[in-house]
Amino acid sequence: MNAAPLSSLPTPCLLLDEARMRRNVARMAGHVHGLGPALRPHVKTGKSIPIALAMCGGAPGPITVSTLAEAEACFAAGFRDVLYAVGLPPNKLPAVQALRARGCDLIVLVDNVDAARAIAACRTAIPTLLEIDSDDHRAGVRPGAAELLAIAAVLRDGAELRGVLTHAGGSYDCRTAAELTAMAAQERAAVVAAAERLRAAGHRCPVVSIGSTPTATFARDLRGVTEVRVGVYVFMDLVMAGLGVCSLDDLALSVLVSVIGHQRDKHWLVTDGGWMALSRDRGTSGHVHDRAYGLVCDASGRPLGDLVVAQTNQEHGLIARADGAPFDLNRFPVGTLLRVLPIHACATAAQHEGYHVLHGDAVSAWWPRCRGW
Amino acid sequence: MNAAPLSSLPTPCLLLDEARMRRNVARMAGHVHGLGPALRPHVKTGKSIPIALAMCGGAPGPITVSTLAEAEACFAAGFRDVLYAVGLPPNKLPAVQALRARGCDLIVLVDNVDAARAIAACRTAIPTLLEIDSDDHRAGVRPGAAELLAIAAVLRDGAELRGVLTHAGGSYDCRTAAELTAMAAQERAAVVAAAERLRAAGHRCPVVSIGSTPTATFARDLRGVTEVRVGVYVFMDLVMAGLGVCSLDDLALSVLVSVIGHQRDKHWLVTDGGWMALSRDRGTSGHVHDRAYGLVCDASGRPLGDLVVAQTNQEHGLIARADGAPFDLNRFPVGTLLRVLPIHACATAAQHEGYHVLHGDAVSAWWPRCRGW
Repeated sequence: MNAAPLSSLPTPCLLLDEARMRRNVARMAGHVHGLGPALRPHVKTGKSIPIALAMCGGAPGPITVSTLAEAEACFAAGFRDVLYAVGLPPNKLPAVQALRARGCDLIVLVDNVDAARAIAACRTAIPTLLEIDSDDHRAGVRPGAAELLAIAAVLRDGAELRGVLTHAGGSYDCRTAAELTAMAAQERAAVVAAAERLRAAGHRCPVVSIGSTPTATFARDLRGVTEVRVGVYVFMDLVMAGLGVCSLDDLALSVLVSVIGHQRDKHWLVTDGGWMALSRDRGTSGHVHDRAYGLVCDASGRPLGDLVVAQTNQEHGLIARADGAPFDLNRFPVGTLLRVLPIHACATAAQHEGYHVLHGDAVSAWWPRCRGW
Repeated sequence: MNAAPLSSLPTPCLLLDEARMRRNVARMAGHVHGLGPALRPHVKTGKSIPIALAMCGGAPGPITVSTLAEAEACFAAGFRDVLYAVGLPPNKLPAVQALRARGCDLIVLVDNVDAARAIAACRTAIPTLLEIDSDDHRAGVRPGAAELLAIAAVLRDGAELRGVLTHAGGSYDCRTAAELTAMAAQERAAVVAAAERLRAAGHRCPVVSIGSTPTATFARDLRGVTEVRVGVYVFMDLVMAGLGVCSLDDLALSVLVSVIGHQRDKHWLVTDGGWMALSRDRGTSGHVHDRAYGLVCDASGRPLGDLVVAQTNQEHGLIARADGAPFDLNRFPVGTLLRVLPIHACATAAQHEGYHVLHGDAVSAWWPRCRGW
């Protein structure tokens, strides 16, 4: 594919700055490897084979997935060491068994005795991680809970307890570097304590898996942890920038939109980039800088002061200053191309079929995304 | 395709109750035709050919689209009278011209002189509607604005001014039947006034187009209006139920999810239906009944009191009572199938590749959706 200018693209569409993506990948890999653990990148953010390969250093390596569709797509592209990091209900076991029978070393996750029983009943030694709740945020058992040993006992007979896993998603609610550093220490402490308790009870527990982009970034000590799962770091986004995990210059993803009109008395630009292109995510609503539905840049990616996508409908975005003040609408005639930085890269990317890959201001490739479950 | 039980489906997935959909379609058609205008259904909600056909009474008829991709898909399926109801930037003109050259009577929309000039410069008599702002909500010119006649004058030479259009999206902010009835009257008054002003200035203005599901439902007088555009009525959703536009029994769409765990001390069910399956839409947040990310039903579609999806991550949904009170988690063991009614049907459906079509509790077909722009 020859390089094409941005003006040749239909709007709205998704742009990926490949150089920024590779810089984000290299920075995280250097940081995590410097602390000791292996990296098991989460492909749920990119959901695209070239991106998964880049996260693994250019060739298939250990990955994390959020759907069996991602596992299928990655296995077809040569990835074999795949962790499905969502608690497994029994209705997904046949698909898991089928993938494993075809040669994919698919690892699954449980946090309760019933799901563990269903996995053990297959009697095919399905490698299973036990999910630990390190932050009262979502799923998992507390490291000290009675259920921890009960699940391990069930898995021993018919499955393979491969280790423990946690995800400190509560890190998204932190507001300072000190809070993030403390959350990273809490994440490590919880999962290491669970591993030690299992080992003391006579279980093997070779894998100790943590991960979230904020805690991984702020972790200073990962002793006892064997692998780190991170996903959104590959693109970064305004939530990560708001947490201090990255700077705006690290954001690799944006949505290209066209100005389609003006509402002069309301100080609005109207664009063709609505929630169908941006998502409805409002992840910066509690931040010091609330970016509404996205921060607005010119066509080359430079932020335009505090212009944000203030409101969205399905195929309309209303751009205004974050403080609602007037600005010079005449700088943005109908047809002007703008780029919108995403609030939450996982959610924005999910609205699109694939990525127009940018080098500088030219588009050199299109990378499709995997969809569905 | 033979009928299959719900338990044969992968979760999460999208279910469509066809009987409810057909009842919604018939009710709206009867209401609008009873008031006089034609119906030009908006296919942006369903984005699926069998649904578009059902909305048109079984055979291709006049439709509204929100993307050129919908126009392409519908034209390929035999629809020819297609209104693209998003303001047109110049970069989409080549695609519009190409569709028209292939025989699609594609109608476009403008609300400013610059876009009108680009359309007129094609000199191919592209039929164009002039967008009217009836509610200070989004795009369009006010009926009394000087720009109304300026745009019409530009279109006269090279394009075809076919009429006026408005969308009272402000109806979503109404809270009572009286407010909705008043908004419907305001929507009609604005667009009829604009049409009369254009006619008084010597322009033909055969089409007078209004539309939003709430205003269409509460309209009592549509004199002077020639067509009504409605979309979400085909499925209805919790926003519509909250506005009093429908009852919960009218909701045709739901997301099938599996219970994957429990957090007993927090009174949460954990499911595999996160925002990837439900969307991030929070459209009932200002309603008397805030349904968070969706109202939870049993597998046959009966609401379970006030259980809602209280929180979502990408592939996790946390179900709790809306008031946070304890409930009996033992009724919902791991593997239990539940159905989640959508906050905003357009947004939830957009997260899926297609519809598993339900008759009673059995799935009889799969209808794909059109995606992209």
